[in-house]
Amino acid sequence: MALIVQKYGGTSVGSIERIMHVARKVKSFRDQGHDLVVVLSAMSGETNRLIDLAKQVQSSPDARELDVLLSTGEQQTIALLVMALKQIGVDARSYTGPQVRILTDSSFNKARILSIEESRMRKDLDEGRVVVAAGFQGVDENGNTTTLGRGGSDTTAVALAATLKADECQIYTDVDGVYTTDPRVVPEARRLNRITFEEMLELASLGSKVLQIRAVEFAGKYNVPLRVLSSFKDGEGTLITYEEDGMEEPLISGIAFQRDEAKLTILGVPDEPGVAYRILGPIGDANIEVDMIVQNVGADDTTDFTFTVNRNDYEKALKILQSTAEELGARDVNGDVKIVKISVVGVGMRSHAGIAATMFKALADERINIRMISTSEIKTSVVVDEKYLELAVRTLHSAFKLEQELTQA
Amino acid sequence: MALIVQKYGGTSVGSIERIMHVARKVKSFRDQGHDLVVVLSAMSGETNRLIDLAKQVQSSPDARELDVLLSTGEQQTIALLVMALKQIGVDARSYTGPQVRILTDSSFNKARILSIEESRMRKDLDEGRVVVAAGFQGVDENGNTTTLGRGGSDTTAVALAATLKADECQIYTDVDGVYTTDPRVVPEARRLNRITFEEMLELASLGSKVLQIRAVEFAGKYNVPLRVLSSFKDGEGTLITYEEDGMEEPLISGIAFQRDEAKLTILGVPDEPGVAYRILGPIGDANIEVDMIVQNVGADDTTDFTFTVNRNDYEKALKILQSTAEELGARDVNGDVKIVKISVVGVGMRSHAGIAATMFKALADERINIRMISTSEIKTSVVVDEKYLELAVRTLHSAFKLEQELTQA
Repeated sequence: MALIVQKYGGTSVGSIERIMHVARKVKSFRDQGHDLVVVLSAMSGETNRLIDLAKQVQSSPDARELDVLLSTGEQQTIALLVMALKQIGVDARSYTGPQVRILTDSSFNKARILSIEESRMRKDLDEGRVVVAAGFQGVDENGNTTTLGRGGSDTTAVALAATLKADECQIYTDVDGVYTTDPRVVPEARRLNRITFEEMLELASLGSKVLQIRAVEFAGKYNVPLRVLSSFKDGEGTLITYEEDGMEEPLISGIAFQRDEAKLTILGVPDEPGVAYRILGPIGDANIEVDMIVQNVGADDTTDFTFTVNRNDYEKALKILQSTAEELGARDVNGDVKIVKISVVGVGMRSHAGIAATMFKALADERINIRMISTSEIKTSVVVDEKYLELAVRTLHSAFKLEQELTQA
Repeated sequence: MALIVQKYGGTSVGSIERIMHVARKVKSFRDQGHDLVVVLSAMSGETNRLIDLAKQVQSSPDARELDVLLSTGEQQTIALLVMALKQIGVDARSYTGPQVRILTDSSFNKARILSIEESRMRKDLDEGRVVVAAGFQGVDENGNTTTLGRGGSDTTAVALAATLKADECQIYTDVDGVYTTDPRVVPEARRLNRITFEEMLELASLGSKVLQIRAVEFAGKYNVPLRVLSSFKDGEGTLITYEEDGMEEPLISGIAFQRDEAKLTILGVPDEPGVAYRILGPIGDANIEVDMIVQNVGADDTTDFTFTVNRNDYEKALKILQSTAEELGARDVNGDVKIVKISVVGVGMRSHAGIAATMFKALADERINIRMISTSEIKTSVVVDEKYLELAVRTLHSAFKLEQELTQA
């Protein structure tokens, strides 16, 4: 007898058959006595179709009107799901974002939720109805329709769960949970039963694209237990919660990697205050996002400074760096696009020494040269040559025994 | 420098190209200095596509949810038109029915407008924006989305025009105005420059399906000058207004006909009070709509009673009538499905005698037998055998000289 918020993505509601499948799934939870709030995305492909229509009409579609257009996608799926539920005898009612009254700021296309009105949903739940709410959309204080940006339906689900103090927020996708790493690279990759919010944030931002980062942040902030499951396959999925005291925690939860990075180095810059800003300032001004940053003191009074950017920004960043190098009187500038970043993530790192050493030894044993290292509280990342990606990930997966149920320190 | 409400139907916004065509049309009015409120339908075919989806999910789609689903159609076209307008430099803003706040009752699928909030639209107009509003939809006092039923966009346009005290409400369709009769039957049929609300109501209800009856009633009630024009062809269209004193009015405005009627007669029923109710009561109880009703006193103390129904209801009505005949001790019951109704309509009838005589003589000259006659203040209808339809309509069109610009008494 719990209150569960369930979110089904575009693939899960991508056809009439799939919508009916979701209805039966919802009914099975209802039959177990649970109260349910269901959040839906638009049918897969629909949002892209609408964006395409918009671009045919206006080269750069008006932000306010784009949200009016795009928000029709979920409005269609919520109505269809309620019909499907009623068809199998489950009482339900649909709400658009404005109807729930999910109040957002006025940043069209990427609005942020300010508050959620609870009363209408609560009344329906009390009267035994399933509430079916449109994800991704809200309304600003002037009554304009807004959308939360790509993947915003996850955020809607978590926000509704937080507002209603739901027992769990379940995100149904086309994968059956969060894995220790990409199973396409390591066939032994294992689905995690549990993972902490912080680990999930590190894994998500590093490329395991299962959940929207904002949704995970939100869930963490409001302590909403979040579960990722498959809408097509039965199973427990992966539960994302806070670390609980006394639990057996794995040392390392997963290994993430990112293929689309490039690395730039400026060599022999004077080692003096403000030099990092003088190097990265112009890069930021050009709207280029910098990921890893490493600075080494050189032999003389100079320093070498290395950072990574998205591979698409490499040429632009290199040009800027070359002109910075001239200004600073640097010795040289070089770069490499054939690199990848690999990160091991785990809250166990906080309390256990030697993780980095294990990592570096495993890579050294395979003669994989480490080009860059960066560490945070629960993550250690290395940059290696692109050609070593698969070997490195498999080596680390096995070194940390991730194919086994629990890796103890 | 007028305030004009324009409504474009589904065919007029049926593709991206057509939406851009509408945008250019709107711009040309804007360039003339007019203030504009544009009301749109969904793209042609979209509403049917959505209804079809709904029926795949629920055999008899839930009325509330169907409105949530259907209202997405216009929401898409209004956003796209605003983008198209902005693309050509015309400032505009879209409003859904709930956003305008077109308050309706809660009769989903066939809601009636209760009130319209003027302030947001007025502010946009004052600031030089074109207001683009979704037709067909509104919101009830509980915040539920409602729709006005098929063709409801015409009603929205007229209601907005009434609220804003617009100088004219222009309905753009795929015909270029109201004709004296169906040009497919009478090639000489002429577009009317003007017609009164009452004539339009009689013509519309009799089968000239240019405008929604409710919209015409609404326009008449609030005295909104209504103009029907083509969105594809330039021209003045047909202006629908009140009769103005001193104007040269045509005697007859048009000839309507209806092919899908059937006629039923009960013969030799006792001529006593309450008999009409005893005959038509059971017909109405069976949800069969009765059109013309004629009662003749017979030779003895009995009477013959004839009425017409939609041809689809003929079998059902005949069965009911047969059982009524037994109860009443009537002599016989007969019927005919091969009949048509032809009506001449004109406010001139009010003040001019002899219209009916001219009509009957013209038909007699062609040896067309009249099976039934019914008259109202501005309309005379006859029922004739189906095979005479074309001949009868052409004969009357020519008898009343409708091919000429003005028919004087």
